[in-house]
Amino acid sequence: MPSEFALIDRYFKRPPRNPGQTALGVGDDAALIRPGPGMELAISTDMLVAGTHFLPNTDAEDLGWKTLAVNVSDMAAMGAQPRWALLAVALPAATESWIEKFARGFFACADEFGIDVIGGDTTKGPRNFCVTIFGEVPTGQALLRSGARPGDDVWVSGAPGRAALGLAHLQGRAVLEQPQLADCLAALHRPQPRVALGQALRGLASAAIDVSDGLLADLGHILDASRVSARLQIAVPPAPTFPREAYLSGGDDYELVFTAPAAQHAAIVALGDTLQLALTHIGSITARASDAIDLCDMEGRPIEVAERGFDHFSSGIT
Amino acid sequence: MPSEFALIDRYFKRPPRNPGQTALGVGDDAALIRPGPGMELAISTDMLVAGTHFLPNTDAEDLGWKTLAVNVSDMAAMGAQPRWALLAVALPAATESWIEKFARGFFACADEFGIDVIGGDTTKGPRNFCVTIFGEVPTGQALLRSGARPGDDVWVSGAPGRAALGLAHLQGRAVLEQPQLADCLAALHRPQPRVALGQALRGLASAAIDVSDGLLADLGHILDASRVSARLQIAVPPAPTFPREAYLSGGDDYELVFTAPAAQHAAIVALGDTLQLALTHIGSITARASDAIDLCDMEGRPIEVAERGFDHFSSGIT
Repeated sequence: MPSEFALIDRYFKRPPRNPGQTALGVGDDAALIRPGPGMELAISTDMLVAGTHFLPNTDAEDLGWKTLAVNVSDMAAMGAQPRWALLAVALPAATESWIEKFARGFFACADEFGIDVIGGDTTKGPRNFCVTIFGEVPTGQALLRSGARPGDDVWVSGAPGRAALGLAHLQGRAVLEQPQLADCLAALHRPQPRVALGQALRGLASAAIDVSDGLLADLGHILDASRVSARLQIAVPPAPTFPREAYLSGGDDYELVFTAPAAQHAAIVALGDTLQLALTHIGSITARASDAIDLCDMEGRPIEVAERGFDHFSSGIT
Repeated sequence: MPSEFALIDRYFKRPPRNPGQTALGVGDDAALIRPGPGMELAISTDMLVAGTHFLPNTDAEDLGWKTLAVNVSDMAAMGAQPRWALLAVALPAATESWIEKFARGFFACADEFGIDVIGGDTTKGPRNFCVTIFGEVPTGQALLRSGARPGDDVWVSGAPGRAALGLAHLQGRAVLEQPQLADCLAALHRPQPRVALGQALRGLASAAIDVSDGLLADLGHILDASRVSARLQIAVPPAPTFPREAYLSGGDDYELVFTAPAAQHAAIVALGDTLQLALTHIGSITARASDAIDLCDMEGRPIEVAERGFDHFSSGIT
């Protein structure tokens, strides 16, 4: 079995895209980076555990992509440009063919979003992947959770719930037909973080978050941080073959939920056209009330939802 | 059981020490930091796994300290000032009393070294702790592994091997008496990263690394990166009750091994006096030879060492 040092060299050491800012990459006690002038660094970390965040039999290349993509999504939600990442991995054994496939998926995502992999750690242990990601955002322009104001519109990108539906199919809780099956499995295994959208929303949106735990749960974090409530109107079901629960409470899609002043409505519709991405106006922000979210269908009838989100301590796989 | 969001708020959310540079801490999709002018960021990540890096029954508060301290040590080895850290944790269950103790040890170390904890992740899974640490170092002044030159002196701080000896006692492979036992267990459980030494070595040392895998193994990384060899003279045993193998190959002490031009000898002796820290001249750098390290005792007799280091994929606990 190759040593951890050999594995790092073989699969994770690549020349930096931008040596001026990536002063030192993999191979010393630390990496050295130089953020650009006028930029602040957005930093986030996410840990993925077998059995909690992914099925144990997940394809290694898909898992490599997703491990980085879920972190890229945090940069999208801040309106930041992802730039650097570190990867710490625990594996029960250093199966080289598995690592090679994982690295291929990981770097496919790194290349897609222009990220230098500048360091990491490999160790023996139950399967665990921990990525730390760094993005640049012009000082003071990051999209926070705390900026939503009464009267703002609530928007969501794409079609959340597809990943949850794909997982339900794999777990035998739902039966999908093609082409919906392929679409939902792609959403589950190869999520597309909304980086271009996040950056375009700087100056337009008042708050943003990515949908990792479910639309209602993640919007709830915006409402808590902004001390406001929301009234949502949702088509039920959003599509003939699409369960309402998946749309409202399915995590793992990495779409963006965001709020914006009503005056920006036309600009956001135009942005969706430019990006060729569905941006759906699903409600509006209200003053803080006892119910954080007042949810009704398109005729104004209240919708009750049993499960409003996902907590990684109390639930199983998302 | 409290949710992951409640636990983050309760134990890991603290006001920043320096709001001017820590623009946003725990609680959004990412943290926001602003490195100082003229500084580059040193960044490192280390993952600690139960059974590989620590005994499963390790005291939670000690483990909290050590989880951060081993990362602080990477900043010391770069000559950087540690400033920020993120902590991702997987736990089989959210035992609140355990988390409270772990957090106490973790923040004791953060406070000792002036670190803001700016983010993290908590999830369910086999016990795993992944820290990412950020330090500031004046641009171009970081201590790298690659700067050692033939003729340089080789130095080591403190007395490496004490942590390995403490572990051997706990595992029944050695029997220590007080006060050595207490000293070795302190080295194992509460390592003191050499941050002040690392910063003082900027401009003095030509290369540096921290001793995490063993003196010979870690010096070996300097020699590889610098494409040089070394001739070491070691007292055998270094102290009457101190096995040679622990000194040469015991990891986990987080002392610094460094090289410096011979002309800096007196300055380094004076630095040891100032810091009240033993700095021992153990040999010198030579031109690259077939043997990376030529090891002999104080009379010049060759020393053979069976085990020259520690690899986290092929070994058990350090």
